[in-house]
Amino acid sequence: MSKGFTLWFTGMSGAGKSTLSEPIAERLRAAGHKVEILDGDVVRTHLSKGLSFSKEDRDINVRRIGFVSKLLARNGVVAVTAAISPYREVRDEVRQTITEDGAGFVEVYVHCPVEVLAERDVKGLYKKALAGEITSFTGVSDPYEAPVNPEVVVDSSKDSVADSVDKILEKLRTLGYLAAEKAA
Amino acid sequence: MSKGFTLWFTGMSGAGKSTLSEPIAERLRAAGHKVEILDGDVVRTHLSKGLSFSKEDRDINVRRIGFVSKLLARNGVVAVTAAISPYREVRDEVRQTITEDGAGFVEVYVHCPVEVLAERDVKGLYKKALAGEITSFTGVSDPYEAPVNPEVVVDSSKDSVADSVDKILEKLRTLGYLAAEKAA
Repeated sequence: MSKGFTLWFTGMSGAGKSTLSEPIAERLRAAGHKVEILDGDVVRTHLSKGLSFSKEDRDINVRRIGFVSKLLARNGVVAVTAAISPYREVRDEVRQTITEDGAGFVEVYVHCPVEVLAERDVKGLYKKALAGEITSFTGVSDPYEAPVNPEVVVDSSKDSVADSVDKILEKLRTLGYLAAEKAA
Repeated sequence: MSKGFTLWFTGMSGAGKSTLSEPIAERLRAAGHKVEILDGDVVRTHLSKGLSFSKEDRDINVRRIGFVSKLLARNGVVAVTAAISPYREVRDEVRQTITEDGAGFVEVYVHCPVEVLAERDVKGLYKKALAGEITSFTGVSDPYEAPVNPEVVVDSSKDSVADSVDKILEKLRTLGYLAAEKAA
């Protein structure tokens, strides 16, 4: 069995975390990995209903995702997480608990300038946030702390989904996480 | 890899759920299984901090444990849960979501008469509950709905830990869940 790890996407709402997590999961499954996607919305439903978007509650939410990822990763599963996870300190805390546990942690920063996100505005949230109708909106009225030293950075305003997926897989290959390559 | 399943302990506080989960996990690991214990207290810390002991919050807690168990079990892990989980309906709901997912669900009712629990009172909680100092205490001031048709029933006022562990393993063997036996 291949080693478990957590592939942790972080980035603002609409940047493309979930969009990337799906094809990545598919490619990893094709390579023989067991994969679970912990999407931000799914997690808010099943693990964190009732939590607000205060810093404290966001940190609790991210720690919960980290806890579940840890359980999966240490049992050989790839946990792909796609939550905004805006605060550096708690992301780093999760990285530490997962790697201490013997599993891998690969952070992917999905960058996109807020102007582009506001123009894209798939869920119509940026418009509301910029109009002050939503408070505590990451990147508008709430902080987003970009990773200082993530394993991968992609920019969804410039890179295609296919190119980003390739870039992430290339990094996983370099780090020795791809099952099929190990077997070769 | 052997099939994942959830071994779901249910019973009142102090009945012996956690006490049984440890040696069971050890035996399952020795048989080649990957095992995670989701103990009630651990879960209250990592998944459900802030939840109360109202029916609504207890149900949310149990659903969360069920959600995590499902993720583990469908990836071949044995999820051993040890939470009071007092309400039948939500336990059955969890059973359904896990079995629909193709994994197994084995419910173990750890019975113990409340008089014996009150006398044992390891954590000193029954005394307080009976004195009215703790409200919503399962079996005293809050309901406990015993399973109607659990896979295993043990009675910790009569059965030794060793006998109960054997009984549970015997049932897992009968159900075809033991890895070592499958390989034989």
